[in-house]
Amino acid sequence: MDSVLRQSKAMCPFLKTASPATLRALSTSARPTATPSPSPKASPCGGTMSKLTLLAGRCPVMGKAMAVQSSKYGAAASLRAFSNHAKTSSASAHGKAKMHTSRGQEARAVEGHVSGIYPPNKTNKPLADARAAAKFNYESFYTAELDKKHKDKSYRYFNNINRLAKDFPRAHMSNKEDRVTVWCANDYLGMGRNSRVLNKMHETLEEYGAGAGGTRNISGHNRHAVELEGTLAKLHAKDAALVFSSCYVANDATLATLGSKMPDCVILSDSLNHASMIQGIRHSGTKKVVFKHNDVADLEAKLAALPLHVPKIIAFESVYSMCGSIGPIEEICDLADKYGAITFLDEVHAVGMYGPSGAGVAEHLDWEAHKEGMPRGTIMDRIDIITGTLGKAYGCVGGYIAGSEKLVDMIRSLAPGFIFTTSLPPATMAGARASIEYQMEHDGDRRLQQLHTRAVKEEMNARDIPVIPNPSHIVPLLVGNAELAKAASDMLLNDYQIYVQSINYPTVPVGQERLRITPTPGHGKELREELVQAVDEIWTRLGIKRTSDWAAEGGFIGVGEQDNTEVQPLWTDKQLGIEQAAKEIMATGGQSGKASLTETLLEREAGAGRSVAAAA
Amino acid sequence: MDSVLRQSKAMCPFLKTASPATLRALSTSARPTATPSPSPKASPCGGTMSKLTLLAGRCPVMGKAMAVQSSKYGAAASLRAFSNHAKTSSASAHGKAKMHTSRGQEARAVEGHVSGIYPPNKTNKPLADARAAAKFNYESFYTAELDKKHKDKSYRYFNNINRLAKDFPRAHMSNKEDRVTVWCANDYLGMGRNSRVLNKMHETLEEYGAGAGGTRNISGHNRHAVELEGTLAKLHAKDAALVFSSCYVANDATLATLGSKMPDCVILSDSLNHASMIQGIRHSGTKKVVFKHNDVADLEAKLAALPLHVPKIIAFESVYSMCGSIGPIEEICDLADKYGAITFLDEVHAVGMYGPSGAGVAEHLDWEAHKEGMPRGTIMDRIDIITGTLGKAYGCVGGYIAGSEKLVDMIRSLAPGFIFTTSLPPATMAGARASIEYQMEHDGDRRLQQLHTRAVKEEMNARDIPVIPNPSHIVPLLVGNAELAKAASDMLLNDYQIYVQSINYPTVPVGQERLRITPTPGHGKELREELVQAVDEIWTRLGIKRTSDWAAEGGFIGVGEQDNTEVQPLWTDKQLGIEQAAKEIMATGGQSGKASLTETLLEREAGAGRSVAAAA
Repeated sequence: MDSVLRQSKAMCPFLKTASPATLRALSTSARPTATPSPSPKASPCGGTMSKLTLLAGRCPVMGKAMAVQSSKYGAAASLRAFSNHAKTSSASAHGKAKMHTSRGQEARAVEGHVSGIYPPNKTNKPLADARAAAKFNYESFYTAELDKKHKDKSYRYFNNINRLAKDFPRAHMSNKEDRVTVWCANDYLGMGRNSRVLNKMHETLEEYGAGAGGTRNISGHNRHAVELEGTLAKLHAKDAALVFSSCYVANDATLATLGSKMPDCVILSDSLNHASMIQGIRHSGTKKVVFKHNDVADLEAKLAALPLHVPKIIAFESVYSMCGSIGPIEEICDLADKYGAITFLDEVHAVGMYGPSGAGVAEHLDWEAHKEGMPRGTIMDRIDIITGTLGKAYGCVGGYIAGSEKLVDMIRSLAPGFIFTTSLPPATMAGARASIEYQMEHDGDRRLQQLHTRAVKEEMNARDIPVIPNPSHIVPLLVGNAELAKAASDMLLNDYQIYVQSINYPTVPVGQERLRITPTPGHGKELREELVQAVDEIWTRLGIKRTSDWAAEGGFIGVGEQDNTEVQPLWTDKQLGIEQAAKEIMATGGQSGKASLTETLLEREAGAGRSVAAAA
Repeated sequence: MDSVLRQSKAMCPFLKTASPATLRALSTSARPTATPSPSPKASPCGGTMSKLTLLAGRCPVMGKAMAVQSSKYGAAASLRAFSNHAKTSSASAHGKAKMHTSRGQEARAVEGHVSGIYPPNKTNKPLADARAAAKFNYESFYTAELDKKHKDKSYRYFNNINRLAKDFPRAHMSNKEDRVTVWCANDYLGMGRNSRVLNKMHETLEEYGAGAGGTRNISGHNRHAVELEGTLAKLHAKDAALVFSSCYVANDATLATLGSKMPDCVILSDSLNHASMIQGIRHSGTKKVVFKHNDVADLEAKLAALPLHVPKIIAFESVYSMCGSIGPIEEICDLADKYGAITFLDEVHAVGMYGPSGAGVAEHLDWEAHKEGMPRGTIMDRIDIITGTLGKAYGCVGGYIAGSEKLVDMIRSLAPGFIFTTSLPPATMAGARASIEYQMEHDGDRRLQQLHTRAVKEEMNARDIPVIPNPSHIVPLLVGNAELAKAASDMLLNDYQIYVQSINYPTVPVGQERLRITPTPGHGKELREELVQAVDEIWTRLGIKRTSDWAAEGGFIGVGEQDNTEVQPLWTDKQLGIEQAAKEIMATGGQSGKASLTETLLEREAGAGRSVAAAA
């Protein structure tokens, strides 16, 4: 019978392309409309006809075939030919089930061939045993799924890391005495322990309590939501903003709503987009076109192949979290204009980190205009939808979108993931707002973070440790093997009290496993030296490939590739004040010894009290 | 050409049943495999062939028709017959586009008939204008969607409600001086201002900062998560628990993961299930079977119609939030056992509120066994997956699932909505845990809440105000009209300083609009009298139907129906201590005046200092 299905699939465009879900939906029972039978038991097959079978009868090919078969073997056989379900033992199975069954409904479950696509059941045991054996074994299924994760080394063991506000960036493990330095958190600026944020949260907690007490529509809308959304709109120079439980939910809900509502919408998605966007696109049920990571030519080819008048969303990120690459925002805006698309830019890893106000990479690209409060016509202004998080550089939790008034109002009015969930607590919203405002006023943390990033990258490169080159604040060290990456992470934690989580499949492709390091303003010289020394030793102990090894093989994802070594950081020397400092250093007698310019500058910063301590 | 499509749809099972997404996917361009053309421009239609057209060529009906047409009018015409796209003006449009286009890719966008299902484009203007006019107008689309909401009265205006921890259940509006009493929050027990919760949060905020700083896998796993999940597992007497950003995410992620992973899974869903479950089922892409609300017979018929061996999930709630009905949990467990299904029970509106430990309705049903710490074999023990929230009775934010070790580990390992999102802040998790533990030790708040609920229902009923009867803590007042419901809510707020949000479509069906009142332990006698008096006046002012009016029409959704008036509350007189109190009152000289037994008991409770103030 399998061959019949294979043959049918090869022949029939319907069977070939219909999704399993469609087929399943069609496999539900339906009485034959032509000859309604008063009782299903009167049917020779003992069951009701599936909708699939009814459809088959209307197909010019199958209908004829079924009619021929039916005249040869009776109606039941013809159904089987199409449904791949009935075995020749079906009649006897039916008989057995009947014998052991006392209740009509129970009998129907075994008798009814309601589902042509389900594999046949075991029926040659006494019914009680057969029923027990026939039931799906859920626990075995869960175990099998977990076994798969263990086998492909993608099973995750969580490390118990308790980041200490007063001892940033240090943390304790499950035992309070076991201290480690955290080198992989996304609290990039240490705002989670900023005193202005904490004070605002304490105050709000005291005045307004622990939770919001409802959805935004039912008693969960308050001044904190209004003020936070006002600040976010101002930050991105947009009409309006909307806060969600997380940016995962913001991305998912917004893309799913837009994609499902706009007629014939096509979503063009960067191949390295975050899971939240991938899910949102999937949930929209609309057409998805994936373009090569940061490849404007590929994107244009794909846009050009679509009719001008259909709605299109280009969904992409500014900073790609796992490799640190940065999206070609301006070029994508140009393409969007040309082909009538809107842009959906995820600035999750960039807000707080780039731009004169910390609004992200889009703002950073027009530094002067934004510094002068002239956002109109800038790249950020051209982006239709910006999404961001309150849980990384802003140190709290939650996510948001910013855009035009109508867009935001539509998402507010239609997205179930926004409508049907409890609002963020007042203290969370007030704290996040304080954090954003602090970063709008002070750029010291993000400048220091960039300097620490440069220093770590320079020191790693100096020791032949493979940093995947990128222009952002992410320091990805290429390992290239899941077990080695986990071993390196475990060794750093256990032997060096340094916490850097290994990043394995499915977060990155197999063979691109890495350690992802995120310096903060709190990672001063001593901590950096500890880190680089530890990584160097572990690379040796575990025999992990160095940059020169990758180079000898011709390079890989930018590591050891000649033309990729000169990736320029997005924060320029001028923006970081390095140009000016270099002049001053030269004027006062030049650099001393072997310290790099970055290091010399960092020493000056530390001396000027511009460390993270000043911010807290 | 439309008639051709209509005809094709009526004839062809493929066209009739394939989803728009499938059709769109098939409409992408593909070179004809039989006669590969070196350049798309060589094709008479100026474009590439769609996959749909290729499939059509293989269909025994369309293939033949196309061959006949092709011999008559050439290949292009035959394609049009199937694709409903090309107009006779197509060739000239192609010519124009070519004239005004300098770049190949741009020309291709207009030339290529890559999408048979898109409606034809306007092409008789000069190209620059045509391009601008042809682009999708996003802002108009958003506006049109919002207009729909305005028209059907489902557009939502949020009220700015700032619940005051020290003046519970009072709040201020956008102006701090404008005070109102909140009667519709889901902070059912006032735990959002419980001093143990707040102290724990202040302490945790100080020690561990504002945010978690990462996903659970990357630096966001900590003692607070471990301890909270341990407490949740203990609360529900399960192996394990897993915390999510919200219970919306918990429901969505868990159902989507289970439904998509288990082969041929069927999810049976109560017709009144919450949006989060509906989305989760949709996102799973698996088969959904909706059973009538709380209708065990309908559920059984649907279970019986499915093969025994396919995995099935019965998804339902304990307390349905908008009508206050309670699911038949034990009967559903029986059916699950019989038909080899697992049970997925949403206890979002019940946790903290029912049972000796506040574990929910499932626990409440075996009061004595759980009170004695003997959970094995109880109804709660039989439920496979319990989901709950930390944002309603527990007064914080967040959601969770509890179940077997393997189940929880599988969801932890596979659900994108869990994996790829920032953890809840340490202070939120610590506060929620303190709240759960408080409610495990004290049942005073939920008893008092139940007494206040009884009192409000009794007083409303005494004034002929239509309470939709139910056994839970929800007090839904039937209005039956969207505009009236909003007017009543606005009038309560503006004229009486009482906040009760109106509940309109789509949260409830059209015609069942209501005011949903949620008493708390803080809603003492004075506030209750204010509420009932205000509602009574508004019912008169707006001419809203009273219970007797509904009764005269034969009753509606339980209101004014003879047999529905005697719905027994889940919390029995004995569990509330009313039985004992009644005896004592009788012994000491009986009730005084017209006060009801509930009211008399409430006075005793207040006298004994068992008010919410004691808890805070």
